Amino acid sequence: MSWTLAQIAQHVNGQVVGDPEYRIRAVGTLTQAGPEQLSFLANNKYRKFLATTRAGAVIVTAGAETDANTNLIVVEDAYVAYARAATLMYPLPKAEAGIHPSAWLHPDARVADNVSIAAQVTVEQGAVIAEGVSIGPGSVVEANVSVGRDSVIKANVTLCREVQIGERVVIHPGVVIGADGFGIANDQGRWIKVPQIGRVVIGDDVEIGANTTIDRGAIDDTVIGQGVKLDNQIQIGHNVTIGEHTVIAGCVGIAGSAHIGSYCAIGGGTGIAGHIEIVDGVQLTGMSMVTKSITEAGVYSSGIPIEPARQWHKNVIRYRQMDKLFERVTLLEKRLKD
Amino acid sequence: MSWTLAQIAQHVNGQVVGDPEYRIRAVGTLTQAGPEQLSFLANNKYRKFLATTRAGAVIVTAGAETDANTNLIVVEDAYVAYARAATLMYPLPKAEAGIHPSAWLHPDARVADNVSIAAQVTVEQGAVIAEGVSIGPGSVVEANVSVGRDSVIKANVTLCREVQIGERVVIHPGVVIGADGFGIANDQGRWIKVPQIGRVVIGDDVEIGANTTIDRGAIDDTVIGQGVKLDNQIQIGHNVTIGEHTVIAGCVGIAGSAHIGSYCAIGGGTGIAGHIEIVDGVQLTGMSMVTKSITEAGVYSSGIPIEPARQWHKNVIRYRQMDKLFERVTLLEKRLKD
Amino acid sequence: MSWTLAQIAQHVNGQVVGDPEYRIRAVGTLTQAGPEQLSFLANNKYRKFLATTRAGAVIVTAGAETDANTNLIVVEDAYVAYARAATLMYPLPKAEAGIHPSAWLHPDARVADNVSIAAQVTVEQGAVIAEGVSIGPGSVVEANVSVGRDSVIKANVTLCREVQIGERVVIHPGVVIGADGFGIANDQGRWIKVPQIGRVVIGDDVEIGANTTIDRGAIDDTVIGQGVKLDNQIQIGHNVTIGEHTVIAGCVGIAGSAHIGSYCAIGGGTGIAGHIEIVDGVQLTGMSMVTKSITEAGVYSSGIPIEPARQWHKNVIRYRQMDKLFERVTLLEKRLKD
Repeated sequence: MSWTLAQIAQHVNGQVVGDPEYRIRAVGTLTQAGPEQLSFLANNKYRKFLATTRAGAVIVTAGAETDANTNLIVVEDAYVAYARAATLMYPLPKAEAGIHPSAWLHPDARVADNVSIAAQVTVEQGAVIAEGVSIGPGSVVEANVSVGRDSVIKANVTLCREVQIGERVVIHPGVVIGADGFGIANDQGRWIKVPQIGRVVIGDDVEIGANTTIDRGAIDDTVIGQGVKLDNQIQIGHNVTIGEHTVIAGCVGIAGSAHIGSYCAIGGGTGIAGHIEIVDGVQLTGMSMVTKSITEAGVYSSGIPIEPARQWHKNVIRYRQMDKLFERVTLLEKRLKD
Repeated sequence: MSWTLAQIAQHVNGQVVGDPEYRIRAVGTLTQAGPEQLSFLANNKYRKFLATTRAGAVIVTAGAETDANTNLIVVEDAYVAYARAATLMYPLPKAEAGIHPSAWLHPDARVADNVSIAAQVTVEQGAVIAEGVSIGPGSVVEANVSVGRDSVIKANVTLCREVQIGERVVIHPGVVIGADGFGIANDQGRWIKVPQIGRVVIGDDVEIGANTTIDRGAIDDTVIGQGVKLDNQIQIGHNVTIGEHTVIAGCVGIAGSAHIGSYCAIGGGTGIAGHIEIVDGVQLTGMSMVTKSITEAGVYSSGIPIEPARQWHKNVIRYRQMDKLFERVTLLEKRLKD
Repeated sequence: MSWTLAQIAQHVNGQVVGDPEYRIRAVGTLTQAGPEQLSFLANNKYRKFLATTRAGAVIVTAGAETDANTNLIVVEDAYVAYARAATLMYPLPKAEAGIHPSAWLHPDARVADNVSIAAQVTVEQGAVIAEGVSIGPGSVVEANVSVGRDSVIKANVTLCREVQIGERVVIHPGVVIGADGFGIANDQGRWIKVPQIGRVVIGDDVEIGANTTIDRGAIDDTVIGQGVKLDNQIQIGHNVTIGEHTVIAGCVGIAGSAHIGSYCAIGGGTGIAGHIEIVDGVQLTGMSMVTKSITEAGVYSSGIPIEPARQWHKNVIRYRQMDKLFERVTLLEKRLKD
């Protein structure tokens, strides 16, 4: 397969600077691409490579044309345009429709015609699988789960009973949706289980990264809004709600009943306490520690980055002496006043 | 199914205030429940909803009766009583006994009669599955594993060779128990593997959350005491021991050979160093960093919560200048003395 | 099976002090081992047990002979020697060659003769499985994956399309290699997917712990160098590269396009930002927060360990007042100068 720059420019709503009939066959990074490859410049850090790239063409944001020595496609947002061009050139591998003979489907599951169910899959009673869905090898769809049109469930995923998955959702391998939330009550020193009877409801166009876990609600549902993008190894507790188009990077933990707004961006490794509220439009940098509600949009951070170990050790000691330092300064101020 | 308040009150050892013959069919939260639903008040934050709830009845702790306008069940501990009532009304879905034809059991596995083994399961040689156990779809029970009476292994769980699971244990999807610990020795710059020949021994009534991992011991066993409750995505290194009735929230990492006492409560995202000891009755708040043994019961914390990013940036700089500030204050004190 | 101390000493390149014909049958820790067991002393913390151990023999590093009252094998590095002795005595359980009837292999997969493929496995089109490989129950090998000689893939592992695994690699249960990286572009508030078309390339002699995830590259590959050892629940973003013989402890998160050098040691729970570079020979202590490139080898740390909660609370307040304290001290200095 190959595409002319004119074809790609039209697809991404851009202007060709150079030869519109130039043909490319693949994408590549600025430093690795060759003459048959299309590259892009979205991060100014890499602008220096524009002069020396061997790429056959480069997608750039308007304003970057001057530095280049190759064909360009000039657009409003180079990264969005690259995403679209790459999606044109590399459509997601679509599993063939059909049910693998080694899969097991309960006779009372309702599976649409145009569905792909891979080897070693289990689909339990009452599950509803809509048209265009594919379910990867080894995945388990428990009783009364519903999966919306054109959603892609990859390998070794577990969707627990009654979980509701929207349309065009992508769920990567190892994800567990709808396991019991951590509901326990202390009965005179021993912990007894609180039944977890809510569901998980996942909106349309959500993507969920590998080995992420989303617990079912205790009574009401856990709800992930449409367009939310979750990276790998995220843990979402029971009754959490996440607003539309929020993105969350890897290794984030969100405790039960936290409510996250829409259009938020949460950095990797962040921890969010339970029973708090975060308004729309909040950004948290990586490894943030959130213990209280956030009531205003904006960027928030926490954590002290690394230092050489010796210096770190000294600073930790100083930190613990701070309170005394305040007293010393107060005393100095008093003395000086006297 | 429906229950009278008298029935429920008897089950939870409470007193009905209102109509003991009132019938309820389900549970619900104070704000969402309707006339056929039973709710509860366990967190004072939600007490304000007691006056306006449409719930048919509410379980409350003695003392909260005055605010309510609906039927009550008054108990000593509302959350424990709710847990019991909900368990009565929503018994854990019990898989039907029987072995699914797509499961594979080694002929030398010893499987009791009254067991449920789901689709796509593997049970290897020498495994022993006691009465009343259920094993979910896609799970793997390796050689010589033993699973005690009435334990519930959910979908896509891996129990590695020789792991010992107690009675009434619940293991959620994606859990891996008994993978090799991180035992490596540095042989002149290259790392060689140290065989991991211990087991994992899980006590009775333990619950283990989705995608949690518990490594086998290097020589002796890794041991999880009875009644321990583990949330999702916890990592427990080789030869860790955890005392009875300790609870651990999600995303906690415990390095090898750490020993955790009984009746501890460990907040989410906490990291615990290897080869240390934590006594009984320790509480750690979320995201704690534990580098040394804890020798006294009590509550411990670490971490500095988020601030607006600009302020955070300034404070990190100040933190790094602290040592100099101490010098400046010492100098001031000296000068003032002179 | 049993071994004489002479046999073991020869295998580990050590000297017997005591009876070279003494026979041992197993290994054990200094405190637990009996007369038929071999123990070792690698951590000085445990040296006190040397006088009282009931072990039939102990491997020690030269210099520790004096304290012992049992047979010794004296070596240069007791832990390396123990690793070798234990590997001799406990060879990794080797799965029998053969393809389980419940496994499903695509007819176009290329599987060498001397391979073990367990129950419920899926091997897709174009996959290449070299001699001596074993693949555990429930694992999924997607299209065009290649697994090198003598590698061991445990249970419920997912190797996504085109992933390349070297020789003698060990991959523990629940690992996901080659899921899509977190590539999204913000198209006027909505996030669109950026196709992830790179692969993951894993070098020889790598070991990967349970439930770890390694994402495929966005365009170029994600690369794990030979001899790298990864613990459990590590998350590695797209286009990360890790140099040879680096070790990483559990629960570490590495964001996209970070480049980690060779011979590094990264403590558990560490977070590493994307698009940064860490040179060879860097050590990071547990829970480190790395936001910038590290350009010099050495030991780095961050994080403030726990304190009693009351003290922690006070110190957090003090931390937030630091900036004002600096102003107060500056004012004091000025006044004193005046």
